[in-house]
Amino acid sequence: MSTAYAGERASRAGRRDAEETKAAIVKAARYLLARHAHGDITLKAIAERAGVSPPLVLKYFGNKDALFSSVMNFEADVETFLDAPLEDLGAHMVRHVLTAQAERGVDPILRIVFAPLHGAQGEILRENFRAQVSGRLADRLPGEDAGLRAELAVAMLLGLGAMYGIARGPHVRAADVEEVVKRYAPAVQDTLGPTP
Amino acid sequence: MSTAYAGERASRAGRRDAEETKAAIVKAARYLLARHAHGDITLKAIAERAGVSPPLVLKYFGNKDALFSSVMNFEADVETFLDAPLEDLGAHMVRHVLTAQAERGVDPILRIVFAPLHGAQGEILRENFRAQVSGRLADRLPGEDAGLRAELAVAMLLGLGAMYGIARGPHVRAADVEEVVKRYAPAVQDTLGPTP
Repeated sequence: MSTAYAGERASRAGRRDAEETKAAIVKAARYLLARHAHGDITLKAIAERAGVSPPLVLKYFGNKDALFSSVMNFEADVETFLDAPLEDLGAHMVRHVLTAQAERGVDPILRIVFAPLHGAQGEILRENFRAQVSGRLADRLPGEDAGLRAELAVAMLLGLGAMYGIARGPHVRAADVEEVVKRYAPAVQDTLGPTP
Repeated sequence: MSTAYAGERASRAGRRDAEETKAAIVKAARYLLARHAHGDITLKAIAERAGVSPPLVLKYFGNKDALFSSVMNFEADVETFLDAPLEDLGAHMVRHVLTAQAERGVDPILRIVFAPLHGAQGEILRENFRAQVSGRLADRLPGEDAGLRAELAVAMLLGLGAMYGIARGPHVRAADVEEVVKRYAPAVQDTLGPTP
């Protein structure tokens, strides 16, 4: 093995570790933000839950508020969530919510439900949600009432995530992902409206 | 006016006042349970928010835990929520969530989303939700996979409540209730499955 190749591999592994560490920190912050008011969460608690040191959290995110801002933002998640042609978008979004929940224990949009916990920060979360999730989807829908149709379709996905991840409905958790897609996605697709 | 009649009227007014006071206390408890962990909520905070004295809360509910148990229970709400013939149930549930939210600022089932806040109490909330909401609905559905169909229909209603009451989607809040029923209820009804 050439030294250059070994170096490249090490650098790739380093990047992967960094990404994994950042993901663990974000996941820990999301977990705590679903259970405690913003102001009651310490950097130490986030680091402990993520299994890293507090300085490492600071290294990656600068400070606690910057970390929270990134968690209160949907940009990164919505890119994948909405990444399908309009005519397949219903099935794609349903499948994405289910696999993200089942495989990684996260949901691209569900954290909006914890807005009431966070006072003024909750209002930022709502504004981001409207602009980045339902607004972004509405921009892709042709025809009248795109805003209403987008909100109703997003409502269905929010509810699916809540049933799976919070209420932990035993039937939806036991079902095959594609079985749920088959039953749930047509309603989402219909709500999006006819594709041109 | 006869004395007997005046007495009857006073007693009716008393009953109404008692019901209104109890409703105000329950609403205050729900509000606080959506924002703070169970253990951090004081009787005093509930009474203050309801605009009554702490002893009045105790008079009506016995103690804080009994009040929380009644809020963590869906029995009373689900009776009205599911009170329609199966063939109209989709429209009824959608209309009920929207009008309860718009007229009284409450939702019959949405408080399940605050389960993560409440530790062991959250698990009780989940068990009640499964037994009293999705389980109760499943019992009414004929055919196979009633449990899954009920959970998916309830998911849609949860999502609608979250979009209206938590994300506060401007389009769904501005829309006429019957317009939303027209767009959203067919999906719920289809999910419930064919009526015999």
